[in-house]
Amino acid sequence: MTDRPRARDLGLVLGGLPPGPLNAITDVEGVQVGHVTRIEGKGKLAPGHGPVRTGVTAIVPHAGDLYRAKVAAGVHAFNGLGKSCGLEQVRELGEIETPILLTNTLSAWRAADALVTAMLHASPDIGITTGAVNPVVCEVNDGYLNDLQGRHIREQDVLEALENAAPGPLEEGSVGGGTGCVAFGFKAGIGTASRRVPESDGGFTVGALVQANFGRPEELIVGGARLGRALRGLGADRREQGSVVVVLATDAPCDGRQLARLARRGVLGLARTGATGAPGSGDYVVAFSTTHLRPHDVEGRVVAARPALLGEQRALGPLFQAAVEAVEEAVVNSLLRAEAMIGRDDRRVPALPLEPLRQMLGLV
Amino acid sequence: MTDRPRARDLGLVLGGLPPGPLNAITDVEGVQVGHVTRIEGKGKLAPGHGPVRTGVTAIVPHAGDLYRAKVAAGVHAFNGLGKSCGLEQVRELGEIETPILLTNTLSAWRAADALVTAMLHASPDIGITTGAVNPVVCEVNDGYLNDLQGRHIREQDVLEALENAAPGPLEEGSVGGGTGCVAFGFKAGIGTASRRVPESDGGFTVGALVQANFGRPEELIVGGARLGRALRGLGADRREQGSVVVVLATDAPCDGRQLARLARRGVLGLARTGATGAPGSGDYVVAFSTTHLRPHDVEGRVVAARPALLGEQRALGPLFQAAVEAVEEAVVNSLLRAEAMIGRDDRRVPALPLEPLRQMLGLV
Amino acid sequence: MTDRPRARDLGLVLGGLPPGPLNAITDVEGVQVGHVTRIEGKGKLAPGHGPVRTGVTAIVPHAGDLYRAKVAAGVHAFNGLGKSCGLEQVRELGEIETPILLTNTLSAWRAADALVTAMLHASPDIGITTGAVNPVVCEVNDGYLNDLQGRHIREQDVLEALENAAPGPLEEGSVGGGTGCVAFGFKAGIGTASRRVPESDGGFTVGALVQANFGRPEELIVGGARLGRALRGLGADRREQGSVVVVLATDAPCDGRQLARLARRGVLGLARTGATGAPGSGDYVVAFSTTHLRPHDVEGRVVAARPALLGEQRALGPLFQAAVEAVEEAVVNSLLRAEAMIGRDDRRVPALPLEPLRQMLGLV
Amino acid sequence: MTDRPRARDLGLVLGGLPPGPLNAITDVEGVQVGHVTRIEGKGKLAPGHGPVRTGVTAIVPHAGDLYRAKVAAGVHAFNGLGKSCGLEQVRELGEIETPILLTNTLSAWRAADALVTAMLHASPDIGITTGAVNPVVCEVNDGYLNDLQGRHIREQDVLEALENAAPGPLEEGSVGGGTGCVAFGFKAGIGTASRRVPESDGGFTVGALVQANFGRPEELIVGGARLGRALRGLGADRREQGSVVVVLATDAPCDGRQLARLARRGVLGLARTGATGAPGSGDYVVAFSTTHLRPHDVEGRVVAARPALLGEQRALGPLFQAAVEAVEEAVVNSLLRAEAMIGRDDRRVPALPLEPLRQMLGLV
Repeated sequence: MTDRPRARDLGLVLGGLPPGPLNAITDVEGVQVGHVTRIEGKGKLAPGHGPVRTGVTAIVPHAGDLYRAKVAAGVHAFNGLGKSCGLEQVRELGEIETPILLTNTLSAWRAADALVTAMLHASPDIGITTGAVNPVVCEVNDGYLNDLQGRHIREQDVLEALENAAPGPLEEGSVGGGTGCVAFGFKAGIGTASRRVPESDGGFTVGALVQANFGRPEELIVGGARLGRALRGLGADRREQGSVVVVLATDAPCDGRQLARLARRGVLGLARTGATGAPGSGDYVVAFSTTHLRPHDVEGRVVAARPALLGEQRALGPLFQAAVEAVEEAVVNSLLRAEAMIGRDDRRVPALPLEPLRQMLGLV
Repeated sequence: MTDRPRARDLGLVLGGLPPGPLNAITDVEGVQVGHVTRIEGKGKLAPGHGPVRTGVTAIVPHAGDLYRAKVAAGVHAFNGLGKSCGLEQVRELGEIETPILLTNTLSAWRAADALVTAMLHASPDIGITTGAVNPVVCEVNDGYLNDLQGRHIREQDVLEALENAAPGPLEEGSVGGGTGCVAFGFKAGIGTASRRVPESDGGFTVGALVQANFGRPEELIVGGARLGRALRGLGADRREQGSVVVVLATDAPCDGRQLARLARRGVLGLARTGATGAPGSGDYVVAFSTTHLRPHDVEGRVVAARPALLGEQRALGPLFQAAVEAVEEAVVNSLLRAEAMIGRDDRRVPALPLEPLRQMLGLV
Repeated sequence: MTDRPRARDLGLVLGGLPPGPLNAITDVEGVQVGHVTRIEGKGKLAPGHGPVRTGVTAIVPHAGDLYRAKVAAGVHAFNGLGKSCGLEQVRELGEIETPILLTNTLSAWRAADALVTAMLHASPDIGITTGAVNPVVCEVNDGYLNDLQGRHIREQDVLEALENAAPGPLEEGSVGGGTGCVAFGFKAGIGTASRRVPESDGGFTVGALVQANFGRPEELIVGGARLGRALRGLGADRREQGSVVVVLATDAPCDGRQLARLARRGVLGLARTGATGAPGSGDYVVAFSTTHLRPHDVEGRVVAARPALLGEQRALGPLFQAAVEAVEEAVVNSLLRAEAMIGRDDRRVPALPLEPLRQMLGLV
Repeated sequence: MTDRPRARDLGLVLGGLPPGPLNAITDVEGVQVGHVTRIEGKGKLAPGHGPVRTGVTAIVPHAGDLYRAKVAAGVHAFNGLGKSCGLEQVRELGEIETPILLTNTLSAWRAADALVTAMLHASPDIGITTGAVNPVVCEVNDGYLNDLQGRHIREQDVLEALENAAPGPLEEGSVGGGTGCVAFGFKAGIGTASRRVPESDGGFTVGALVQANFGRPEELIVGGARLGRALRGLGADRREQGSVVVVLATDAPCDGRQLARLARRGVLGLARTGATGAPGSGDYVVAFSTTHLRPHDVEGRVVAARPALLGEQRALGPLFQAAVEAVEEAVVNSLLRAEAMIGRDDRRVPALPLEPLRQMLGLV
């Protein structure tokens, strides 16, 4: 566990809305996060064997039976590269029925398969007396530090990440799916933040969790300052421009269409950290609401009352602002909290230097 | 008014669900339809002057104040050519706040502007103390018979079509937006049909109205019979393959996402009449629900209960079947009910001959 | 190998364009298809153990190095349920860089992972000195006959299907990904057909291959005849309405946008066999062109000439017609060529009876 | 004509790529821009009569016959509200065949109709011996200052804007479609900027033109500085959060799919000025390439060679960066160049104060 600061610890305030008590996605009641981190071996890349610098992060929308109490959800494929699993059905049905996993590119399918194993265990009727299940997995390419070809995420890793999932404060930086991540030439990984909208706008919470593996060194912006230029030459020289996954959670009672709108705002937060949406990158935002639970199947009833967000023009605005701010801060946290790492072929990725940041921004 | 038969008058039964009492889109309670038909001049085309063979059809989702009680809606741009207005916002917000107009390609914008005039009259606060309004207009190219460049639909025509809108039986064939339409080489235009799903599936009604201006002669299929081949040489030789607009109405309490799913099924009904989705065609389906009304703006409240269609897998299936069947029959009705017409440059488009149809299908 | 007839053997001619010499997707030069069929055990379902009634089909766009010579591609998620892998990137980049696999729902991820294994073997630089690879896998739920939870497709099965891939005639019915399929209550599976457009329209070939696992018994239409009603009570009573995957290949030099347009026409062919797009179904069309090969990466050059389909309005029309006809015939072939099968829990799915079909359609 | 500075005049450098010689969309060779500005009347709003504070801007992709030499194009509806015309077909065909107009919300359809008039004049065969034409019009709601209901853009205004279109430097601020615009509480309107990518990346130019009418006062960011908070209380108190249209031009030989990718990056530039994508806003990006001209129709030929951008991962990255930077600077220019304006109901919208900006950013 690192003792590096989060943005707020440095006095860096991004945006205008207040964060929740943890300033984390877990401020949205019911949301749980679990990591498994795999760091093994060192030195020269032996494809299929190591070094291993990867992991998996599970975001569990609520502690109940997700298959029987699905969450409304929307996605935005800003940059539709990558090997994500399950997003087609989220788009079609506006809901998610499993935890969301974040892992490395070439482990996406093994992770999805392992997630199905977990779902079958919880709901043994899947595929027998009821339909199939749609696992949601997103990924980034951590091959700058990690033996990507090794596809090192095993079923056991996924099951452990799910078991590890808990409410409360969560680890950031080089953990879980963020283990091998690099952003803007510096070590990054998982980051999180949250915002609360005013009671007069509903008092809802929006939480963001990012898996940050994108950006060229000179592009980095922190708190509006073009920090990347000042740090030129200090970061790792990764030509591949990487990917980024954003998960947004809210307790606002949005439906899938509204959550797809919310998801689109996630990229505005990325932009404020310097993102240009590199063409080889896979940039996705997944948004869900914990309030709008849906039964798996409703025999004999086709109509029911359910809560809904009305007054869309009024109600969504604060949520959009919250999402933009939380995503920006989550990316910054992913950089701040990550320690330097040496990986594949002894490549070294430094941690973001704090002193130049403090100076440029006039922080404590 | 023609005395040509509708499909059911010929004993032609398409699909397995029963129609509503009128076998028309107006079987969906509250839906009103109004036409204005413009047939003026004859002989050689004088661009901008005539002959005029066009019109406008208004589908009014309910008789109340649509701007203050919007209908949930979805669209499918199967073949996204054409000059339709307003569909972007339907996609984004999942709702429609004006009547839907069907007219000719180059009159779409004047029709939209006239529809705004009507909306401003009804809601004088639009654009002053509240937002703007999003008129929905679809169109087909009736230039084979009509002086398209003349853009002959005037504001007055639109206002009259809206005034003409009424529940109950409605005219088909060469009326309103269908006036100058040709389908599969024969005179076509507006057609309608409806289906009721069983009470055990909710007892909902789905109504379809089509503006049929598509298809090459040899492609026509009626009741499964490849009639077009048998009629080879009898239809007009229109090389341009035209467009088609489908409007689906239902009283099932669907939201916009579900209605977009319903809209996609509209093209399955078109396929059964011979559609191949010609590349120069604009093929759109607009679907709305009369049950799910939404206020324009909700100050001070952001959450409310509203009815919703649950058990999607169970509940939508019968609605999808209803849409496929109603669209197929509406296209056939548009052909059956249209009389032969002579238009621009003395081009003659014959009515669909009934005798070969009866013989091929063994009808009375 | 069955001796049941294909549609043409029965004298059943669907549509107006001539088929290619094999009337199969392999009429598109370079396209190869390979199956692995897994039929093991019988009797009561032992979840995870059997009976096994499944398989995998590989469609290989060309015999060369797909990763270095990608094919232009487009997709249409008509009904976006299901667990397909890789379609996001096809949409974003308009290309496919692996064979396309068809298998069962819960084996999709293991199949994708195995396909990656094959790609890594062929291109050991993937994920090390170049980017990752995007495997394309589609699936249907064969759980009516198969032990779906067993996820019985092993890496070895995928590698064998790829090795089996060959040009020339191909097996249909209960083979490969079609092994456990049921359509309209009868045994179905893989079906294929092709069409050639006239030389004056370019002389291109369009081939279709379907994995047909959809439709309720009463919906079946063959050659325009509502056969399903005549066969009522003869088919298996599968409540779950299943899925369908269509793969379209062409040698016309289309780009990704044009192929996405072509893909949308695939559903018109499905509609003519009775499809209503059941809400729990996953209905996808993937289309690719073998002419428009693209290098993996082009260092030092950013501009080049490439062939392209111009005169879109003229050139695409015949291709669209070809796709509609080939898909319709491929579905019929998938039913005609499949023998009855007994699977999970001794469920028996009969073959489509030929005699009623001959009688209704007046065939030999 | 204002003597207020552009960003570069203040020493404010946004991003890292160099601008073209004019730092304007007209740096893309062949692109022409024309404005018509309508400022008439003052005092209390008389709906339908005035005051008039509006206009129309025409962006002409090249000086030739656009209908016969269409430009490749892509769009991104980031926030799909609004009354834009013609975008459906741009999406379907990946091309634009008319100038692009920017005007006010309720004048969109009259502007589109007028644009058709101009196109019919240039190509009298439209709708007679060839197909129709697809005018592209985008809009923002300038009703805070302007009599929106008046729909004051007449056919003559559009024809004049087209005649006014010229290469070279162009007016910014309160001109053309920007006349009545407000952004972040300050007077804004039209802004433009451009970037050149290095010769080693192709040496292409990307130009941006924005119609900026969005943002709440406290959200404004300039050069990374949260200027809006410092200016709190100085701007107009517009509750409605407005819309924004971005037009991107490039001479890189991109096709429609690549231009749609480019268009998506436009929103990253908006984000850096403070955009949060307010729910009632219509936020669109239209991108076109002047290199990839396409004939209207190609009889007798279906295949041809055409230039194309290859090495997408390498080639698009610099274009994406260029788009992000040019859009950010164009928004800032739209604010810097606009003078204060008094409009409807004597509402006064101040110009962006320069002194606080200089101080916060340490500018000359």
